[in-house]
Amino acid sequence: MASVFGEIFRIATWGESHGGGVGVVIDGCPARLPLSEADIQPDLDRRRPGQSDIVTPRKEEDACRILSGVFEGKTLGTPISIMVSNTDARPSAYSEMETMYRPSHADFTYEAKYGIRNWQGGGRASARETIGRVAAGAVAKKLLQSISPGLEILAYVTAIHDIEAEVDGSRVSRAEIEANVVRCPDAGAAEAMISRIKEVRADGDSVGGVIACVVRGVPAGWGEPVFDKLEAVLAGAMMSLPATKGFEIGSGFAGAKLKGSTHNDPFRMIEGRVRTTSNLSGGIQGGISNGEAIVFRTAFKPTATIARSQKTVTVAGEDADLVARGRHDPCVLPRAVPMIEAMTALVLCDQALRQRIQDCLPR
Amino acid sequence: MASVFGEIFRIATWGESHGGGVGVVIDGCPARLPLSEADIQPDLDRRRPGQSDIVTPRKEEDACRILSGVFEGKTLGTPISIMVSNTDARPSAYSEMETMYRPSHADFTYEAKYGIRNWQGGGRASARETIGRVAAGAVAKKLLQSISPGLEILAYVTAIHDIEAEVDGSRVSRAEIEANVVRCPDAGAAEAMISRIKEVRADGDSVGGVIACVVRGVPAGWGEPVFDKLEAVLAGAMMSLPATKGFEIGSGFAGAKLKGSTHNDPFRMIEGRVRTTSNLSGGIQGGISNGEAIVFRTAFKPTATIARSQKTVTVAGEDADLVARGRHDPCVLPRAVPMIEAMTALVLCDQALRQRIQDCLPR
Amino acid sequence: MASVFGEIFRIATWGESHGGGVGVVIDGCPARLPLSEADIQPDLDRRRPGQSDIVTPRKEEDACRILSGVFEGKTLGTPISIMVSNTDARPSAYSEMETMYRPSHADFTYEAKYGIRNWQGGGRASARETIGRVAAGAVAKKLLQSISPGLEILAYVTAIHDIEAEVDGSRVSRAEIEANVVRCPDAGAAEAMISRIKEVRADGDSVGGVIACVVRGVPAGWGEPVFDKLEAVLAGAMMSLPATKGFEIGSGFAGAKLKGSTHNDPFRMIEGRVRTTSNLSGGIQGGISNGEAIVFRTAFKPTATIARSQKTVTVAGEDADLVARGRHDPCVLPRAVPMIEAMTALVLCDQALRQRIQDCLPR
Amino acid sequence: MASVFGEIFRIATWGESHGGGVGVVIDGCPARLPLSEADIQPDLDRRRPGQSDIVTPRKEEDACRILSGVFEGKTLGTPISIMVSNTDARPSAYSEMETMYRPSHADFTYEAKYGIRNWQGGGRASARETIGRVAAGAVAKKLLQSISPGLEILAYVTAIHDIEAEVDGSRVSRAEIEANVVRCPDAGAAEAMISRIKEVRADGDSVGGVIACVVRGVPAGWGEPVFDKLEAVLAGAMMSLPATKGFEIGSGFAGAKLKGSTHNDPFRMIEGRVRTTSNLSGGIQGGISNGEAIVFRTAFKPTATIARSQKTVTVAGEDADLVARGRHDPCVLPRAVPMIEAMTALVLCDQALRQRIQDCLPR
Repeated sequence: MASVFGEIFRIATWGESHGGGVGVVIDGCPARLPLSEADIQPDLDRRRPGQSDIVTPRKEEDACRILSGVFEGKTLGTPISIMVSNTDARPSAYSEMETMYRPSHADFTYEAKYGIRNWQGGGRASARETIGRVAAGAVAKKLLQSISPGLEILAYVTAIHDIEAEVDGSRVSRAEIEANVVRCPDAGAAEAMISRIKEVRADGDSVGGVIACVVRGVPAGWGEPVFDKLEAVLAGAMMSLPATKGFEIGSGFAGAKLKGSTHNDPFRMIEGRVRTTSNLSGGIQGGISNGEAIVFRTAFKPTATIARSQKTVTVAGEDADLVARGRHDPCVLPRAVPMIEAMTALVLCDQALRQRIQDCLPR
Repeated sequence: MASVFGEIFRIATWGESHGGGVGVVIDGCPARLPLSEADIQPDLDRRRPGQSDIVTPRKEEDACRILSGVFEGKTLGTPISIMVSNTDARPSAYSEMETMYRPSHADFTYEAKYGIRNWQGGGRASARETIGRVAAGAVAKKLLQSISPGLEILAYVTAIHDIEAEVDGSRVSRAEIEANVVRCPDAGAAEAMISRIKEVRADGDSVGGVIACVVRGVPAGWGEPVFDKLEAVLAGAMMSLPATKGFEIGSGFAGAKLKGSTHNDPFRMIEGRVRTTSNLSGGIQGGISNGEAIVFRTAFKPTATIARSQKTVTVAGEDADLVARGRHDPCVLPRAVPMIEAMTALVLCDQALRQRIQDCLPR
Repeated sequence: MASVFGEIFRIATWGESHGGGVGVVIDGCPARLPLSEADIQPDLDRRRPGQSDIVTPRKEEDACRILSGVFEGKTLGTPISIMVSNTDARPSAYSEMETMYRPSHADFTYEAKYGIRNWQGGGRASARETIGRVAAGAVAKKLLQSISPGLEILAYVTAIHDIEAEVDGSRVSRAEIEANVVRCPDAGAAEAMISRIKEVRADGDSVGGVIACVVRGVPAGWGEPVFDKLEAVLAGAMMSLPATKGFEIGSGFAGAKLKGSTHNDPFRMIEGRVRTTSNLSGGIQGGISNGEAIVFRTAFKPTATIARSQKTVTVAGEDADLVARGRHDPCVLPRAVPMIEAMTALVLCDQALRQRIQDCLPR
Repeated sequence: MASVFGEIFRIATWGESHGGGVGVVIDGCPARLPLSEADIQPDLDRRRPGQSDIVTPRKEEDACRILSGVFEGKTLGTPISIMVSNTDARPSAYSEMETMYRPSHADFTYEAKYGIRNWQGGGRASARETIGRVAAGAVAKKLLQSISPGLEILAYVTAIHDIEAEVDGSRVSRAEIEANVVRCPDAGAAEAMISRIKEVRADGDSVGGVIACVVRGVPAGWGEPVFDKLEAVLAGAMMSLPATKGFEIGSGFAGAKLKGSTHNDPFRMIEGRVRTTSNLSGGIQGGISNGEAIVFRTAFKPTATIARSQKTVTVAGEDADLVARGRHDPCVLPRAVPMIEAMTALVLCDQALRQRIQDCLPR
């Protein structure tokens, strides 16, 4: 159950950092969607290690293969199985993790839960697990474009450590985001962020930050009230990504400091359509999209695995000092940008299909 | 699907603000748990309107009846149906909402989604919907105490508008929380908060704030990695409550500004047990509890329904001014405290039962 | 989980024979379906005890109340809660079941599973549990008529004990079925069946039989291949009804004795549509409807509770003889007819809504 | 959704007859179960084509690879991905199916549902789809043996065409079943069955039959009442296998002709345990196992694809005659035996894990 996501457009991911590979099975993608590996690979490339000099140097092509569910270039309506092999596995580089728990990593808790763990490269807790998500997210993005042409999901780094970017989310473009390796559309801030990341890496340390995401072109009416409110499903989706510590939508925590008279988004008829003249709601009201841009932010902690000596305990229950080896990102955010987009696409695609059910009776 | 929550300990809520009542069906509560209405009513009383002079004056006893699933004072293992009647419904007090959408409320989005809505008292989007959650949460709390004796869930108000309380979460007690009507264990801040709430109400306005929640006594090993990470399920649960705008666990958004060397929680053997000497993780690592206190915060926006004139549009698609009547909370937080606890109990109860499955083979 | 049925049009039933009542919550019924108690009561009346002199004399009006999800005569898209009270409960009539297990009933197995049971009137294992199914089925029937006008679900008794009716399923009508209290459209056989039922009742005994069901007007394309094949979901649904022992579709067990050359249904173009010139498939091929009538049969065992002395054991683990009292049907089939129809409607409604998802891309 | 099975021990299968391969992802297998390919391959070998001269000659090794979820010979508690490649695909042998629908096959209904289909070898409707089920079933069998030592699942052919075997299900053994290629433990009948299958194949025809299954060693208390009754889940599971037309448990359709006084299974205390002295219930009462052997039968129709000329229609909507080529089984039953066992194991494993939840409170 833990590795299944979605109600209608449902995915099941599998795979460990070191092992036969990683992948995903998508059950519930409608038939007749044009699809090939070329639709999926670009997002995998944005996620893969070794793509720049501020991420982990692990060398993985992360080339995907569609094993089922597609015939003559179109989806069949049957499960789509997508797989990526692990090619640059180096278990020996992680040998100290066999006997010691990395502080603030999943080593200890996996052991507590399962009584066994694959200590090589973090096993299932590795960021490699997100390959299945990003692949499925690429399929979801393509389906969304068919269902709601013009729908656009853009995530970008808005803060690294104490460096905050200034970005006008309502105008930001993919080109601006991809213009630098840290994926921050504020060029000046991006430069500072890149320096900071290199600095902490040189120092054997790591940094966290914040990723914003804006979704344009979602029609009013998506999302289910009560437990599956759109913001609730988005929050759960983002907080299921490794290293996340917080989620906020629209006004977020700052909104808690406002009064209703300033927080409420006034409605006006604009070009024949119900619009709001501000967007502190972040595009969602009562759990359902209102047709404005959906805007949210996710906080990431600094990478747990660092090259400095840390106090920890051994599997045998003795205090110890750990200096971790292995290949790690000094900052997960640049590679987390496509993960955020993928999870957003998966959530929206599921909701879009669910909303079709409401349309079965005449209005 | 939208009104079903949980995988094993699964609940289905139903009911509108104005109608035959509200309720919940719990499917998946194990047999032989001692249970009666007396276990449920106290939390419903903490949630109900009219309990103090800073909440909505709607008069509802919110007396619950257990209709099934309990026999001679114990659960049968069959569905537990719990119902509360609506007694003080006054649809006429909401008549302007029949024709106009309240800004930042769910009126417009429900209409966009469903093409129909019960405008009386907010219908399904009313806070009355949470009665089923709180009732089921009380059952979950009781079950948790059997599974993990000493487990304690304490939510409390930590900020209202710009007033922030100082609370040591590691020591806070139920008595301190319930010592005042705003449910903030910092007596001085509580007084200021109460004044502020009365002030904005007199002014026809509303305020938001932040609720913290601490859970003690959760053993290491609860939570499922990947999509059902404990923090992800908690985030989704909290963000499914009305008026929520943000969620953070442990260090939260502040953690994004730290370096790994200061953010990581060192492990030490303490009294024969693996412990951490700090708790920026908030009790969860890799989606799984680590045995430390689980600590998170949820941001609430100011109540959308206010007594001031607001710009809006009519159902017919014309710009208009709305002055809402009806009975509303100037601040939802005091009554949201038991809701946060209930959702937390539902999440943990489900995870506790799921974890039993891991224990089926010898360690 | 045990009391939840369906993926999209999802229901949760609750209630015991003796207790606060029985009911159902429907989550996933689309908005804007005209609905009132008058749509539901007729099927409940066909199911209720005391309706004729061949069923149990327990006196229950089984009058239903819709508690939520309907506003001004139309569904809201929110959960529909429907409840029926228990009015003629007589726990004392079942007191011997407190200490002894009825052979072939659920008394012993409930005890084995739960370690507790409500022995009054069979508790959750009572046929009263099906009230929620029949009520939800009536809603599903109404929705199906909107989605696929002309769709018709007709169940009828085709055998009681060794009396077999001759019925042309392709022509049978509701009027013929309801023309007699045993619900068998072969008038001659019906008379014999009624006599047989009265005979065994006078004898303190009971009989079983077979119910056929024909569904006309299902378009080609409903049903999901692999695990949710239409016949698989129907089989699971029918076998979830009390006292069922077998299910067969189309040619059924007799089909196992044929060769492919005689079993295959030839395709022909008829009136511009792909049709089959025989229907041994029973309207389903590869788990998906083919546009022909769906035809299946369900076998019911004789009622377990009989008035004769039977060998059994006590709760304390001693051999004993049981002469059961209480009020019971000497034959469950007449009242099971609306149950079969209800489960069929629930299955088809769910599949109809799921199929809408396939239609989201152009053909 | 269509390709996901189970609630706790949940599997997702994928793959078409012709394509990158077929496989399964198991989510919910507890950690620490010893597991390797050697546990899975034997059942795949019993299922694979080319194993004898009465099955399809398609040459597939069906060698499985475990890609994830296992570490140093034990399950990790994370998803177990198992894959089998397609090696002997010959799409050209199926070219007539590109333009014509095989009678009583899934060709037409897949087209009706999806508007597209993989016509090569039946695509997803091929029996190759069951590889994932059989592989997952082998894992379930191994887990069941740990949970309930001595639990044994034995399926066997009991009828082919009009040849019926005489088998005492209470004594049948794996060795007797595997003693001949048709998997019928009645040696005399088996010989006749094998001849009949060869006969109809020579004649370009096919035959159906019946498979019985007996499960020994299931403790009392497994299965969930109401919708997930054990017989209901078994019925749905068996009827989800290709070519099934009927399911019956215990007395089955014959039980419908009995009176309660002869059908009821008397209880007696035997060796300190509650037992029944007959087993017309088939080991299940009220949806829950009673500790006796579980006994059920599944009817299979004759293979739809035959070598004779048949009346059909073309994709273009014209009447036509089809003479199918490709490689097909003249009788599916010998290879369906491990499929029946696999589905049974999956059902029981899921229920066994669910039952653990009832045991969380003291009895």
